[in-house]
Amino acid sequence: MIKAAVLGFGTVGSGVVELIDINKKSVSRHVSEGMEVKYILDLREFPDSPYRDRVVHDFNIILEDPEIKVICETMGGKEPAYTFSRKALERGISVCTSNKELVAAHGPELLKIAEQNHCSYLFEASVGGGIPIIRPMNTSLAPENITQIIGILNGTTNYMMTRMELEDISFEDVLREAQEKGYAEKNPAADIEGRDACRKIAILSSLMCGKTVRFEDISCEGISHISMTDVAYARSMGRAIKLLGISERDEEAGTFYVRTAPFMVPASHPLHGVEDVFNAVFVHGNLLDNVMFYGRGAGKFPTASAVVSDMMDCALNIGQTIRIRWEDEKMELSDPGQKITQFFVRVPASEKARAQELFPGCVEAAPGCGPDDEFAFVTEPVAEAAFAECSSRLSEVRSAIRMLAD
Amino acid sequence: MIKAAVLGFGTVGSGVVELIDINKKSVSRHVSEGMEVKYILDLREFPDSPYRDRVVHDFNIILEDPEIKVICETMGGKEPAYTFSRKALERGISVCTSNKELVAAHGPELLKIAEQNHCSYLFEASVGGGIPIIRPMNTSLAPENITQIIGILNGTTNYMMTRMELEDISFEDVLREAQEKGYAEKNPAADIEGRDACRKIAILSSLMCGKTVRFEDISCEGISHISMTDVAYARSMGRAIKLLGISERDEEAGTFYVRTAPFMVPASHPLHGVEDVFNAVFVHGNLLDNVMFYGRGAGKFPTASAVVSDMMDCALNIGQTIRIRWEDEKMELSDPGQKITQFFVRVPASEKARAQELFPGCVEAAPGCGPDDEFAFVTEPVAEAAFAECSSRLSEVRSAIRMLAD
Repeated sequence: MIKAAVLGFGTVGSGVVELIDINKKSVSRHVSEGMEVKYILDLREFPDSPYRDRVVHDFNIILEDPEIKVICETMGGKEPAYTFSRKALERGISVCTSNKELVAAHGPELLKIAEQNHCSYLFEASVGGGIPIIRPMNTSLAPENITQIIGILNGTTNYMMTRMELEDISFEDVLREAQEKGYAEKNPAADIEGRDACRKIAILSSLMCGKTVRFEDISCEGISHISMTDVAYARSMGRAIKLLGISERDEEAGTFYVRTAPFMVPASHPLHGVEDVFNAVFVHGNLLDNVMFYGRGAGKFPTASAVVSDMMDCALNIGQTIRIRWEDEKMELSDPGQKITQFFVRVPASEKARAQELFPGCVEAAPGCGPDDEFAFVTEPVAEAAFAECSSRLSEVRSAIRMLAD
Repeated sequence: MIKAAVLGFGTVGSGVVELIDINKKSVSRHVSEGMEVKYILDLREFPDSPYRDRVVHDFNIILEDPEIKVICETMGGKEPAYTFSRKALERGISVCTSNKELVAAHGPELLKIAEQNHCSYLFEASVGGGIPIIRPMNTSLAPENITQIIGILNGTTNYMMTRMELEDISFEDVLREAQEKGYAEKNPAADIEGRDACRKIAILSSLMCGKTVRFEDISCEGISHISMTDVAYARSMGRAIKLLGISERDEEAGTFYVRTAPFMVPASHPLHGVEDVFNAVFVHGNLLDNVMFYGRGAGKFPTASAVVSDMMDCALNIGQTIRIRWEDEKMELSDPGQKITQFFVRVPASEKARAQELFPGCVEAAPGCGPDDEFAFVTEPVAEAAFAECSSRLSEVRSAIRMLAD
């Protein structure tokens, strides 16, 4: 029997413990010795839990038990998760985590420690919840020169945008509803300002190039400025507004454009139909062409399932490292101002002539869709810095949203 | 340098050789020694190919070269592919294949030989071309009790159905067009009669249960009877007709319903938007919920990319077996007549009263959509055998197509 320990008995951690029980048969079909959670580390007691006897409060009990081969770190946050993970890996105990904050900040360092100690550091659940994406990036897509990754990486904001689109509910109302349903946190800033999606596209971009894309370097725009008028325009143009994390190879510079922002996604794009709390990651490889991975981006059991798949991989590879190519060297990103983009723009009707002068070749968008007193248009492809400069010469810009290419 | 051999220099085989050259950098980022194709086995000469010097005609040259660690089998058909694969595995040489016919017929036997000889038999490219599905089934989804797999598994028929839907072209015309474009073969029977999709759902079903689902046991219906009238009805109902391979757990009997047939797919289902030559596999796990894998189901480089990802996995695991759980024991399937299904049905208007009597609770479908002289309806959920029996009591059934549940 492979003995494991779970650090943090919150939503995902308790899901891991329960899943290993509920799906015992599936687990032991692959890990023939079977797998068992021996310890649960948490500050709290859980007197009503059937797992109460496994709860410990001292990490050293786990670290010093030679039976423990795999640790599931579902504590969240940087500390003490970082210190515990490092200590475990230094003893040759594999660590599997859903902690995107820690992976984005210390991924390559922990991978290196794992390799030096013949164990593994795996983090399938840190991006896209239950969607298999980290392992496919590292195996199935390994022969490819990946040129583009586009992800719907945050369930809260995708749920909100879907509701606004399908039910004509305002941003404020849909946020309140999402909070009531438990899809959005009381302080929803990390989600709606795009920082959660930013950490995830940073991890995917790092795996794409093998170096470290720092999430602090990524230009990040959230969805709080998206209005019902924008949503109505998008619908009239056969598009849907989605918060995307995008990473694109800049062939000339040999580096990447990485960005998190709302985009108008055309109906012809496979990401268009990804609704509610579902997430998806679209990948373009130079020879494989397009692939997409779709599933639940969050939730107790989908996320736990991803963690347990990693734990099973570790159990099948005790004494060996499952290698993930990600170096600690910082990846310089391309200047986002040089990225060529088409914008959807809304200005007061009085600015129409000036807008047409500043953006030659622009095309009026969905005439009759918006209020009478405004002019909406789609620009020609333009460098983002040039767009910002020209926009600043308009008396008012009511909205400017990027268009995702077909 | 890891030395490999490619058996069969056709479309996929030549794609493998070229990909390893074109994407040398990506390959050696993961397989640090690098990988090289030393031999190409084919009956033909290729005097104009840059790889002509590697062509050999005698398999024994490959078998007896101790440098060869991995073989790519892209010959197609059962023989000599089966004999060559077996001989290679018996010598501890891993084999990676796109040959669905061979995998469906001899998969578990070859997996066993691989395990006995500390090498691997991998077949990512045998289902869904470039879509990562076999490896995720065996790793990412390993903790799950998979209850349903629904696949668009054949690019030719999906292209044809998409064209019929979007362009109002008849079955005969679209088949001719597909043949001209090289999407359909001169003899398209294996595709349009569903036998190709049947082999693929047999492989996926076998991985789902760990035993052998024989494709000969799967009820199989093709698309040649689908008319433009059917397509128009589907569109009016917000659905699209797609050829699906479906495998569903029958919880009571502990076995599976497996079927290949055209279905009317609702717009709310993620498979609805999978168009043209793209394929997708939708999987429901008991705790993971829904996931979907989408990509190119065929084509030289997408398929080659899947084969090369397997070859890289083998190169990283020389002397070890990458285990795939699939036993030679035959899986008995549930009686397809007992499966509960809703049908869309078209009968002459004169049969309306009798149809309503035979199918109580049936609902008229998209009134006004079809010709005046007919009555179209959707049945309540009904056992398929009971449906067939009732249908036989109607003077004429113009069409009967299954409805995929929301």
